[in-house]
Amino acid sequence: MKLISDLRELLTPEQVSVNETVLEHHSRDESYHTPQKPDVVVFPHSTEDVVKVITYANQHEIPVVPYAIGSSLEGQVIPIHGGISLDMSQMDKILEIRPDDFLVHVQPGVTKDQLNAELARYGLFFSVDPGANASVGGMAATNASGTTTVRYGVMRDQVRALKVVLPDASVITTGSLAAKSASGLNLNGLFVGSEGTLGVFTELWLKVYGLPEAAVAVRATFSTIEQCVKASTAIMGAGIPVTRIELADALIVAAINRYKGVDYPVAPTLFLEFQGAKKSINYDVELAVSIMQDEGMSHVEIVKDEASRRRLWDSRHVAALAFRASVPGKEQMATDICVPLSKLPEAVLDATKTIEEYHVHGAVVGHVGDGNYHTVLLVDPNDEDEMQRVAAVNAHLVQFSLQCGGTCTGEHGVGLGKKKYQALEHGESLRLMKAIKHLLDPKDLMNPGKLVDD
Amino acid sequence: MKLISDLRELLTPEQVSVNETVLEHHSRDESYHTPQKPDVVVFPHSTEDVVKVITYANQHEIPVVPYAIGSSLEGQVIPIHGGISLDMSQMDKILEIRPDDFLVHVQPGVTKDQLNAELARYGLFFSVDPGANASVGGMAATNASGTTTVRYGVMRDQVRALKVVLPDASVITTGSLAAKSASGLNLNGLFVGSEGTLGVFTELWLKVYGLPEAAVAVRATFSTIEQCVKASTAIMGAGIPVTRIELADALIVAAINRYKGVDYPVAPTLFLEFQGAKKSINYDVELAVSIMQDEGMSHVEIVKDEASRRRLWDSRHVAALAFRASVPGKEQMATDICVPLSKLPEAVLDATKTIEEYHVHGAVVGHVGDGNYHTVLLVDPNDEDEMQRVAAVNAHLVQFSLQCGGTCTGEHGVGLGKKKYQALEHGESLRLMKAIKHLLDPKDLMNPGKLVDD
Repeated sequence: MKLISDLRELLTPEQVSVNETVLEHHSRDESYHTPQKPDVVVFPHSTEDVVKVITYANQHEIPVVPYAIGSSLEGQVIPIHGGISLDMSQMDKILEIRPDDFLVHVQPGVTKDQLNAELARYGLFFSVDPGANASVGGMAATNASGTTTVRYGVMRDQVRALKVVLPDASVITTGSLAAKSASGLNLNGLFVGSEGTLGVFTELWLKVYGLPEAAVAVRATFSTIEQCVKASTAIMGAGIPVTRIELADALIVAAINRYKGVDYPVAPTLFLEFQGAKKSINYDVELAVSIMQDEGMSHVEIVKDEASRRRLWDSRHVAALAFRASVPGKEQMATDICVPLSKLPEAVLDATKTIEEYHVHGAVVGHVGDGNYHTVLLVDPNDEDEMQRVAAVNAHLVQFSLQCGGTCTGEHGVGLGKKKYQALEHGESLRLMKAIKHLLDPKDLMNPGKLVDD
Repeated sequence: MKLISDLRELLTPEQVSVNETVLEHHSRDESYHTPQKPDVVVFPHSTEDVVKVITYANQHEIPVVPYAIGSSLEGQVIPIHGGISLDMSQMDKILEIRPDDFLVHVQPGVTKDQLNAELARYGLFFSVDPGANASVGGMAATNASGTTTVRYGVMRDQVRALKVVLPDASVITTGSLAAKSASGLNLNGLFVGSEGTLGVFTELWLKVYGLPEAAVAVRATFSTIEQCVKASTAIMGAGIPVTRIELADALIVAAINRYKGVDYPVAPTLFLEFQGAKKSINYDVELAVSIMQDEGMSHVEIVKDEASRRRLWDSRHVAALAFRASVPGKEQMATDICVPLSKLPEAVLDATKTIEEYHVHGAVVGHVGDGNYHTVLLVDPNDEDEMQRVAAVNAHLVQFSLQCGGTCTGEHGVGLGKKKYQALEHGESLRLMKAIKHLLDPKDLMNPGKLVDD
């Protein structure tokens, strides 16, 4: 195949693979979406390599889909039109750490755990914390967030500057190293969350934070999921600076117990974390616990030592995985709506009712401090009836969210799975999004068929 | 004139003015930039009114420049090509306050003081705090920030959703009411900071915050400006959650003393504020004061009662005005660079040296927690030699900032004054900004000649 030999000549033979296992690996992500193999997988080592590949792809009109860890949850990395899977995982260098500026300069293949391990040596950490050990490039591409967003914000809030190879193979730098800027149009924010449809990130400058003096985790059990959500909303309303405030329903807790060999009370649970100066957080924990008592909390564990705290968050992180393992042979479809805070209790109740109504294997877990929660729905992609019921739950929840001013996706992104809701959510502004995509990528080669692309 | 009679017919006669005083009022902002009168001033009362005006302007290819308070600092509201000054100040309704969602729905002509007065009744406040009592529409247009940005972020961080009339007179809504979203391209962030060049905002949903339990202000005096900046950087490095941390040099303090009839020690000064739970902030204040002592603080006043605290911040807010009043008959050119935190001490020293070298009336004031500071330079626009020297200081400071990865404008925006630095700061990405402007406004009618527009 000419494509392969051309690419091997452009880069090196080792950077271009058509090995069946490698193609298979790049055909899927963590979701239920139908896998599709790329024609070839290319491993760039530099911005120059990416420019070469994009130049070639442009000349020959070949689709290019950026890839790194493959932990996307809506099919973002699946090359539905074949072409080149551009695997950025070998561009995994931490280029510079600047402790005095609270900044780090990285390549896109760096993973969050890799980054945090290195930052810890400087007393620093990177705040965005999705479940998977995602790459920072992928996290920027999907505007990832997760458990700590309630305190530190989403990925877009951390990206200070980007080096981007555009679809025409020109290279631009967006943003600056300043903490704030009113200069020019905000391209940084436009590229973050563009899911590889507007270009390929080859360098990122990210904001990092000083490790707190102390951290305290709290696991609190309630009789009903409604009590959990109300307690969470009350804590947020009181302005307590929680670092994490996470909900898991009884099914999730049971699955965690089995999966991690722990013994948490099987009931709706809030996992919370407080970080800061020791004196301040003790006061915050006290106040939060008293609020939760008022809302009907039945059991609480306050975790202060580092090892136990890590175990607790490890348990929370494997929640979806543990639930998936509880019903073998199923794939996962996760809903991801995010609603205004006051609508959250109603939204979660409506979700649990809807899951029951449609007889779906589903559980609820979420970042309730942001008004964002997931139902983890287990589905056999070959079971058409089950697929339809799961899709109906998803559609119902999205409708609920949009009707109260929310979004169809708080953090998983659009990819393939939320494309059908873009017109409903964005109305007339979808036309402008499409026009911007067309302006940058008139041949529609960068991750075609995703996000706002027909 | 047909333009006038047409507009009067489209809206009502009272909404269209060619009164000489009104035209004069809309010819200038708070800066040194040369005034230019519009042909007509139009006062819309609704989105529909704006659509009518934009449709007409589009048909007849007439420039439209949005206006509200006129407090811009880089000529953003000056209609340099004449046409329509679209005065949004009569669209000043607070449409809805949602305390449980920490959201407020407003028209663009609402001013920050008006908004905060109303929010206080709900125990809430709006965080962005520029010197002037700006309109929220104008603040969104320039991505305003100010004293509290170090804690709460810039205007872009507060804008949840926008209703925008585009240059083709179509109406879109960007964003959602959710605290976070990964849905579609980030148009919200693109419009914020677009300085009226991409459309007219007619409604905004803004994030607001609960009023803190307590607030403490601190005024700390040092022997040198270098000590001030080092103390500020050390406080930020220690991760103390200051709400404000502001620098004023001795000239500014002397001007404040005269202007406000106060008696602060005439020396480089830091103004700080701490907000939160009473117990937590006492601890924070203690720690900050001890850091400042280490850096050579010579005098400190800790202000806890509300009236004195307000007086202190009122003094800080009038700093530029007070300095301008100290040399009558001059206009103000403010530099506005923002550099990575570690470069700030060097940057401020370089600025004071440069002001001396060029024999300019200049003083230093700034939001040092963000790495953003202003030199307030007083100039007679008719004195060509002085204008050149002031321009040279501005250019020197911008060069310094860009060389260390900073920006030419942290918060005042580009308007007319920082256009000449856009190519240097943004390089190749300026081409993309211009392409986006052209995509939305092919006839170049929305605030022509500003931001990235030639």
